[in-house]
Amino acid sequence: MCDDAHMRHALTLGRRGLGSTWPNPAVGCVIVREGRIVGRGWTQAGGRPHAETMALVQAGDAARGATAYVTLEPCSHHGQTPPCADALIAAGVARVVIALGDPDPRVNGQGIAHLRTAGLEVVTGVCADEASQDQIGFLKRIELGQPMLTLKLATSWDGRIATATGESQWITGALARRRVHAMRAVHDAVLVGGGTARADDPTLNVRDLGVARQPVRVVLSRRLDIPLTGKLAQTAHETPVWLVHGPDAPRDFIAAWTGLGARLFEVAVVGGKLDARAALSALGAAGLTRVFCEGGGALAASLLAADLVDHVALFTAGLAIGAEGKSGIGALGLDHLAMARRYEISHAEQVGVDALTHWTRN
Amino acid sequence: MCDDAHMRHALTLGRRGLGSTWPNPAVGCVIVREGRIVGRGWTQAGGRPHAETMALVQAGDAARGATAYVTLEPCSHHGQTPPCADALIAAGVARVVIALGDPDPRVNGQGIAHLRTAGLEVVTGVCADEASQDQIGFLKRIELGQPMLTLKLATSWDGRIATATGESQWITGALARRRVHAMRAVHDAVLVGGGTARADDPTLNVRDLGVARQPVRVVLSRRLDIPLTGKLAQTAHETPVWLVHGPDAPRDFIAAWTGLGARLFEVAVVGGKLDARAALSALGAAGLTRVFCEGGGALAASLLAADLVDHVALFTAGLAIGAEGKSGIGALGLDHLAMARRYEISHAEQVGVDALTHWTRN
Repeated sequence: MCDDAHMRHALTLGRRGLGSTWPNPAVGCVIVREGRIVGRGWTQAGGRPHAETMALVQAGDAARGATAYVTLEPCSHHGQTPPCADALIAAGVARVVIALGDPDPRVNGQGIAHLRTAGLEVVTGVCADEASQDQIGFLKRIELGQPMLTLKLATSWDGRIATATGESQWITGALARRRVHAMRAVHDAVLVGGGTARADDPTLNVRDLGVARQPVRVVLSRRLDIPLTGKLAQTAHETPVWLVHGPDAPRDFIAAWTGLGARLFEVAVVGGKLDARAALSALGAAGLTRVFCEGGGALAASLLAADLVDHVALFTAGLAIGAEGKSGIGALGLDHLAMARRYEISHAEQVGVDALTHWTRN
Repeated sequence: MCDDAHMRHALTLGRRGLGSTWPNPAVGCVIVREGRIVGRGWTQAGGRPHAETMALVQAGDAARGATAYVTLEPCSHHGQTPPCADALIAAGVARVVIALGDPDPRVNGQGIAHLRTAGLEVVTGVCADEASQDQIGFLKRIELGQPMLTLKLATSWDGRIATATGESQWITGALARRRVHAMRAVHDAVLVGGGTARADDPTLNVRDLGVARQPVRVVLSRRLDIPLTGKLAQTAHETPVWLVHGPDAPRDFIAAWTGLGARLFEVAVVGGKLDARAALSALGAAGLTRVFCEGGGALAASLLAADLVDHVALFTAGLAIGAEGKSGIGALGLDHLAMARRYEISHAEQVGVDALTHWTRN
């Protein structure tokens, strides 16, 4: 944990926006004058207003001579709103403490330079590691054109997600399932494979948590063979449904889903499967920064095999299903353990009757 | 956690004997006089001396008028040594606090009655739940004739214990493997199936922990087809090897293993497999109270299917092996989730690079 209490506070505020600010970063800002917090702000749903604007409004005249703690470099370019660097200068802020530079080519040091030119003192790199973790999705999209990807698994001890007969409700308990909704809420999109969309007919929204913006529901389905009578189809006009399909998806399915309001992305097929990397690039190009994949086994295997998974959230339930059960991860073609990508554990806890562990790619 | 500090202390001492006192229980004893601890004892390796004897020797004259805290009812029958109840009386102990009655038919309340008849004050049921957990193996053997069984699993996220090519070393990290040795040390025996004995050629002993008594190595192998050149065979004269086999095991294998010093148990074959329940009963009859099963998948499945598993210790490593990999638990014939035995989680932690969760049968 970094040792600047005001920046930690700003980071906490910034996290409130995770999942709802895309394609913009979720930023936090605290304005402190003579040791007293006079303004707090975070990026609002949809990405505006920015954190600095919120905090400056709250601070009012108290911002004069104050220090602003911002988790990401203030913007310096004229977008839909005037740049935050100008707003900080205009408000009379004396000092700006920044966790992380914004690599967006429209900012990329120019925000800091602008503040310094105007005579403000600027400190950078405070709690930079923590800020990088929070911004991993935004940074990855800027740098690689792809969103951060979290893979959720919810399995029995033996890694099964359903019985041989396909029964999967419920392996984990109510508290774990509620936690999944909280995880969905801090991601921009929830992603499943076509098999899961067919087998479970899921809604994939966030329930009972009062979110400002529902995550986009994304389905990877080569042939778009997802029932037009299912819940995703029925709710596509309320909450976005994005479908990634292959070049061989039937034209009438494309037309039907377009008619329902879904957004469609065509990607190449490699080895009989949708190109997982191309799919993520398409989602990144469309603005997504944080994607939460909930299976099934074939999609999880595709993403892992292409080394696209940044985080794994593993729920383990207290039962065995046995080797006939459905695997949470499909075939990987892994002959030797040394070939396996290793992830580092960062967290282990009990969630109701289940266990939850978090893992991060090394 | 129970609220009697002296009994908690005695329970801690008693746990030192777990795994090395069978067929006797592992008991702890603290003798307190005027608020000062004057004696501490626990059952020694092999089951003698008893905890009370150790503590009384340490207390000497200070035992006169003191209170003895004992985690299990003192014995009242003449075995290899005089009964502990007599020793407490002779030492002038005024008051005995007991966590749990001893259901052994040779004791079963008679120890308590004996103490009371001699004029000592006796309090029972202090920290009884904690003591029952520690004594579960001893109690289960007395009541059901079977040892407590802990199943250890060490798998990838997707429940695999080896690649398709059979590579299994190592899935978990060094600290987890060391923890497994500590777990072996608090069990009377380590149990594996014949497949694991053949594939891994394991030693199954406790290394680098200075144990007073190594656990018995038990292998369930219907046909006794375990290499006579393997590590178990080579070390059978140093540390006990017990083999449970079927009626159809070849006579020359029986003779060879007997010649190496192994102890053999014949049990029936049911549905092509050794009768797991009969095997555990044979081990219970031979004195084992705590058995630690380390797989493989077929044995784990047999034990789970017969509902013989009391505890599960699940190590999870940070990698996926994929659906071609070898399952940690074989086929269970489970059609519906409602048919699955559910276990309650009691613990979740990080052990080095891996996760460890503990589960107890509901």
